[in-house]
Amino acid sequence: MPEEPRPIITLLTDFGEADGFVGVMKGVILGIAPRVELVDLSHLIHPQDIRQAAFVLMTAVPFFPAGTVHLVVVDPGVGSRRRPIAVEISNAYFVAPDNGVLSYSLAQAGSYEAVELTDPRFRLSEVSNTFHGRDIFSPAAAHLAAGLAIEELGPACSDLLLLDTPRLKADENRIEAEVLNVDHFGNLRTSILKFTWENETTLLLQPIFGREGSQLIRIHAPDARTRCGSLEIDGISATFSDVEVGEAVAFVGSEGGLEIAINQGSASRVHNIRRGDPVSLRF
Amino acid sequence: MPEEPRPIITLLTDFGEADGFVGVMKGVILGIAPRVELVDLSHLIHPQDIRQAAFVLMTAVPFFPAGTVHLVVVDPGVGSRRRPIAVEISNAYFVAPDNGVLSYSLAQAGSYEAVELTDPRFRLSEVSNTFHGRDIFSPAAAHLAAGLAIEELGPACSDLLLLDTPRLKADENRIEAEVLNVDHFGNLRTSILKFTWENETTLLLQPIFGREGSQLIRIHAPDARTRCGSLEIDGISATFSDVEVGEAVAFVGSEGGLEIAINQGSASRVHNIRRGDPVSLRF
Amino acid sequence: MPEEPRPIITLLTDFGEADGFVGVMKGVILGIAPRVELVDLSHLIHPQDIRQAAFVLMTAVPFFPAGTVHLVVVDPGVGSRRRPIAVEISNAYFVAPDNGVLSYSLAQAGSYEAVELTDPRFRLSEVSNTFHGRDIFSPAAAHLAAGLAIEELGPACSDLLLLDTPRLKADENRIEAEVLNVDHFGNLRTSILKFTWENETTLLLQPIFGREGSQLIRIHAPDARTRCGSLEIDGISATFSDVEVGEAVAFVGSEGGLEIAINQGSASRVHNIRRGDPVSLRF
Repeated sequence: MPEEPRPIITLLTDFGEADGFVGVMKGVILGIAPRVELVDLSHLIHPQDIRQAAFVLMTAVPFFPAGTVHLVVVDPGVGSRRRPIAVEISNAYFVAPDNGVLSYSLAQAGSYEAVELTDPRFRLSEVSNTFHGRDIFSPAAAHLAAGLAIEELGPACSDLLLLDTPRLKADENRIEAEVLNVDHFGNLRTSILKFTWENETTLLLQPIFGREGSQLIRIHAPDARTRCGSLEIDGISATFSDVEVGEAVAFVGSEGGLEIAINQGSASRVHNIRRGDPVSLRF
Repeated sequence: MPEEPRPIITLLTDFGEADGFVGVMKGVILGIAPRVELVDLSHLIHPQDIRQAAFVLMTAVPFFPAGTVHLVVVDPGVGSRRRPIAVEISNAYFVAPDNGVLSYSLAQAGSYEAVELTDPRFRLSEVSNTFHGRDIFSPAAAHLAAGLAIEELGPACSDLLLLDTPRLKADENRIEAEVLNVDHFGNLRTSILKFTWENETTLLLQPIFGREGSQLIRIHAPDARTRCGSLEIDGISATFSDVEVGEAVAFVGSEGGLEIAINQGSASRVHNIRRGDPVSLRF
Repeated sequence: MPEEPRPIITLLTDFGEADGFVGVMKGVILGIAPRVELVDLSHLIHPQDIRQAAFVLMTAVPFFPAGTVHLVVVDPGVGSRRRPIAVEISNAYFVAPDNGVLSYSLAQAGSYEAVELTDPRFRLSEVSNTFHGRDIFSPAAAHLAAGLAIEELGPACSDLLLLDTPRLKADENRIEAEVLNVDHFGNLRTSILKFTWENETTLLLQPIFGREGSQLIRIHAPDARTRCGSLEIDGISATFSDVEVGEAVAFVGSEGGLEIAINQGSASRVHNIRRGDPVSLRF
């Protein structure tokens, strides 16, 4: 008889990998929930970069089994008055500071339930002022993974702090957007998402961000023109290897977003483009 | 019926993360102890930096469940005459080269029992001269985690090699100490530890290092003055967010030590301060 | 009664550790094969560096338990026509793009069986053009680890793409070879492998690469002379700590290959030597 699946906790921090901070959190978790499976999302978030963490989290959540607990500690306000929270959506839990880091995931989730982590039974007995990842967030995540109901962790809370919605303004033949993330390869991932291919040349955009959330936009991919910094790219491709090595390409990325890359190069470095820079798509 | 908790092995090395050395060690461990839970502490210890590894280990050990095996391979003397050892303290095991890397953890542990790893039954059948992490240390850690008694690994040994005790000299109104570690954020963690707050303004120091080990020191936090390099800081705060962004602060860190930081900046970089630099606390 | 050993999947990519790509793959795997044990080999392969990944894989495979699945995603051709494949050798499985990344491991393995990953039942329901690691390779690896027979994944395929065999040309008293890998410490690992010590001064070389594969070469270690770039080194040592700190040494590395190092320094940086540079051994 196969044993029951182990509960999963993912970890996402800006702690780096040198100092052992993440290992310490895992020690705390395993002391409370020994059967848990631990998966690192990233510990190389730029220090205190809430938007980068929010993006990475958004791209990961849909690919984990239902019931996964996502533990996020990017926490410039540790020791100040920001609230430590746990949030339940239909198929996952989050444990994080209330500083906006869950914004993009909650925008995709629709409804949610949130509590403030106040109950001392689910914290370490000594709580430091500077390492709530270890003393408050890890114990809460471990107890959730071990089966505790979220309501046990503390009182319900609402009006979570949310990040500004990423820019996405569409009119009849043009979308104004922004670079939402620059990845390890220097690829530019934009706020124009989520696309699906209706047929070989037609894209359907159902915006996740922006007020146009409910409105479908139909785009003829070969005629579209993307601009970002000094880049101007004709057409939206199916993949970046559709162009020669060293050439720029706009394509539908792995999350269904408009993505800009240089085949086997770094679009960010070559064209000096960063997160937040404007992107326009004419169609 | 829930299965038994899995034994834990932590890994701490200077192997970096690019070459697969750590993965190979995990392959060896899982071949011997398939049920073990593996937790990385750090593989980004500066090459052959025994003191950095000793510090990271000291901060992690107290947060792991009893019985955890800590495998440490920072080993400039591999292939020379330094002894490979295993050590048992009240609630944990260590497997490491006898080069001082366990010093700070043993200083906190009090008594211990040590053996030299000589028994060929608990090594790989071929032992290389350059990768004892794979051929000697990983098998020993795996066998311990699988339940082998430490005495089976080899003969008892004493007079372990120990690092110089970190500087901590106290007189009536002044402590002379040193920077023990610079972390990923550039925060300076000093040898002045371990503090507890007696009340909102009074700190009690029970030194871990130095001859004053048994003597409690009482400090009025608002009146204390910390000096380190070009930094002079008035008062000891509860946390680094007690000061404005960009300002320097002395506070009680997450291990209970005196820590110096710049809120949302790098104290190490801005003031060019390194491990080993002197710190003084006047009170 | 102890539970059954958990199947192991190792992961080797050039995805870096910042963006969460590897975590997403693990989420997919755990959704299919919840009992699997995940081991990272490296995610810091230089972007699209197939030869580096091939080397790291070759050094790791022999140290994992039989039945381990090695998932390799270094895939410059993603979205183009290169085939996604799974390969079975006597004691392991591989899941990877058919771009040569398995070459060195297959050279050591002898015979193998390969299939193309075509069956949509063992892919995610939506397959992107740019992240086959998530959509094709991870599901295939998870199904193999969960016990699926390799033939179920797709039709048998042959004529796998292979890298050029590393240079190894021997005559009576000289071997011409190349630097196969530069590791984290700056050590130079050459294509001259695999050595065993016949006695304290005599080495036996049974070449893995090159046409001389079946022919044993006997070398008197103290008389051998290694040249690489501006380096000339007399004798082959048992280990790098046989020389003073700062001195260069040729020795038998942990995989049994001829390796060149500077004791506590970086041979690669000091002498500006890179992978592919020629190495000669006179004996």
